[in-house]
Amino acid sequence: MATHKLLLLPGDGIGPEVMGEVQRLIDWLNAQGIASFETEQGLVGGSAYDAHKVSISEGDMAKATAADAIIFGAVGGPKWDSVPYEVRPEAGLLRLRKDLGLFANLRPAVCYPALADASSLKREAVEGLDIMIVRELTGGVYFGEPKTITDLGNGQKRAIDTQVYDTYEIERIGRVAFDLARKRRNKVTSMEKRNVMKSGVLWNEVMTQVHAREYKDVTLEHQLADSGGMMLVKAPKQFDVIVTDNLFGDMLSDIAAMLTGSLGMLPSASLGEIDSKTKKRRSLFEPVHGSAPDIAGKGLANPIAMISSFGMALRYSFDMGALADKVDAAIAAVLASGLRTADIKSEDTTAASTTQMGEAILKEL
Amino acid sequence: MATHKLLLLPGDGIGPEVMGEVQRLIDWLNAQGIASFETEQGLVGGSAYDAHKVSISEGDMAKATAADAIIFGAVGGPKWDSVPYEVRPEAGLLRLRKDLGLFANLRPAVCYPALADASSLKREAVEGLDIMIVRELTGGVYFGEPKTITDLGNGQKRAIDTQVYDTYEIERIGRVAFDLARKRRNKVTSMEKRNVMKSGVLWNEVMTQVHAREYKDVTLEHQLADSGGMMLVKAPKQFDVIVTDNLFGDMLSDIAAMLTGSLGMLPSASLGEIDSKTKKRRSLFEPVHGSAPDIAGKGLANPIAMISSFGMALRYSFDMGALADKVDAAIAAVLASGLRTADIKSEDTTAASTTQMGEAILKEL
Ligand SMILES: CC(C)[C@H](C(=O)O)[C@@H](O)C(=O)O
Ligand SMILES: CC(C)[C@H](C(=O)O)[C@@H](O)C(=O)O
Repeated sequence: MATHKLLLLPGDGIGPEVMGEVQRLIDWLNAQGIASFETEQGLVGGSAYDAHKVSISEGDMAKATAADAIIFGAVGGPKWDSVPYEVRPEAGLLRLRKDLGLFANLRPAVCYPALADASSLKREAVEGLDIMIVRELTGGVYFGEPKTITDLGNGQKRAIDTQVYDTYEIERIGRVAFDLARKRRNKVTSMEKRNVMKSGVLWNEVMTQVHAREYKDVTLEHQLADSGGMMLVKAPKQFDVIVTDNLFGDMLSDIAAMLTGSLGMLPSASLGEIDSKTKKRRSLFEPVHGSAPDIAGKGLANPIAMISSFGMALRYSFDMGALADKVDAAIAAVLASGLRTADIKSEDTTAASTTQMGEAILKEL
Repeated sequence: MATHKLLLLPGDGIGPEVMGEVQRLIDWLNAQGIASFETEQGLVGGSAYDAHKVSISEGDMAKATAADAIIFGAVGGPKWDSVPYEVRPEAGLLRLRKDLGLFANLRPAVCYPALADASSLKREAVEGLDIMIVRELTGGVYFGEPKTITDLGNGQKRAIDTQVYDTYEIERIGRVAFDLARKRRNKVTSMEKRNVMKSGVLWNEVMTQVHAREYKDVTLEHQLADSGGMMLVKAPKQFDVIVTDNLFGDMLSDIAAMLTGSLGMLPSASLGEIDSKTKKRRSLFEPVHGSAPDIAGKGLANPIAMISSFGMALRYSFDMGALADKVDAAIAAVLASGLRTADIKSEDTTAASTTQMGEAILKEL
């Protein structure tokens, strides 16, 4: 059995707690001989700043580069609100994405039947929802230069951010979206603002070309990002795969996540290009929820998004789709049994702790 | 009685139909001696392109500059999907905003009790919703330079858009938001992405300063735009005034509009700076809905958003707040009476036409 090297980066807030439940699962998989994982730990975000005054150390970047996959918790919190911009907690995550070339961010928004009532949307609007948002993750306004604040004198400053997209960046994220759609319901909706942004014009043009050249069997639709956002709120079930740029993807995937009523449940995968020699790709897996500093350290956090992110690692990095299916089924079974952490429970039930939820999922496996 | 000069720009799609109902209202106000409006008409968007191969003619720009207020319908449609970028329908609207300095876009999102069930959100989440989104409208990525597509050779192109904000642009939109909050529930939520964008850092800094210097009596909160979007979907009633940049405002105001369940009901105002001599400001009023080419020319469109936009003109440009209140009350009364256009009716009722709705509102007045 091949041994896989994982780098665990718990980060800040509830990160370490929910990561603990992934560690528990990994230990069990190793002990049972179901898989063979070697794990290392590193620091990222505020915890890296507290230790080394950086958002991620060069040593941990080296470990990240050497790992077969990175399992990432969450970063940030009010404690670091006034650290310098360059070393703010988020910078560590952004550097990992950029330096490892993790251009494809997969964010499934799935509404678990047992939780449909937790949504602010009507049950009929979200029950059975199953969308995959494919967000470009290493381009756009996140990384474009110039990105500056200049003092103009007279008490005036000028801030500049730059949105840049090249053809190849749009092509490769398009292919990820079309490939995924083929394994799903065969439909891709591309979202941009071509009526205002030149990057939207190019995005639209390249998606149309990739589709015509390589994916004629998949349905491609284009929507303006603003009306796409409206449609997500009005009738989300019309979508299968949504492909969009870094900033629109940030907004739209969060909104899609909120529709499901269970942010604490949703995983994500960030993938690099497949190496033509080794057939491997760099990858990082993280829950969609943040570091939730208000509940950190209390054992209240829902570990499902984190465990489910590890499930995505099994599927997308280690070709263990069957085991990933089992993890997903265990989560669904535990939910169906009625166990709930505080974020998803109804008023009249008692909440399970982070550990209780993690143990219950393991038991189900 | 002072005579006010209005420029009516019906535009494309359902624009002319809904504008017809405003014209009816204006004629009546004039005939009754309640007010004195002089109206001119102009072309914008696809209809201007069809006539003059531009998205708005210099003649109509001159009329717009001379008018006391512009009443704008909607632009765009598939017919003009492949006209050159520079003369696409939206360019006419963007030029009006920029050349007239209409930097403050006010987009109320109000959920009419009679229509709460039309929302995809649960009634309890949206009933009584009353948010004012204040969107910066002449800056940011909409107008920043460079805004280009460059051919790099080898089949590669590079698209660039530039987000630019200066201190004074953030200050003046902040003041609009704080002033509005004082007349409402005294709370402003500022949204940006300071964890990724330098313009977000400056936005946050300037809002904090304006607040500390001039508006300590108003509550100011900051939210990241992505989690702000989530909160809008999860629990929108926590917001009073939201102030945000041009692009985030585009997305967030559309999402807020959709929450109310009645896009066909929502008006907007775009305002310039107050001239220190004349005490007047340039202004344009338009419905939030688009040109809806699929139902254009059929007499099906809901004229309420357009009439309500004219109501905002009475309030914000002509200091006729009492008359504006009467228009709002007439709309609410007609809705309470059960009259519905196709977009807001339930399955078992018959739909009123555009004209029937316009006449009913006039009768109520
Ligand atoms: C933490 C932050 C930099 C990040 C982003 O904006 O991409 C987060 O919101 C996300 O969506 O992963
Ligand atoms: C028509 C388009 C250019 C416009 C915008 O993006 O501002 C519209 O979506 C709006 O919100 O007024």
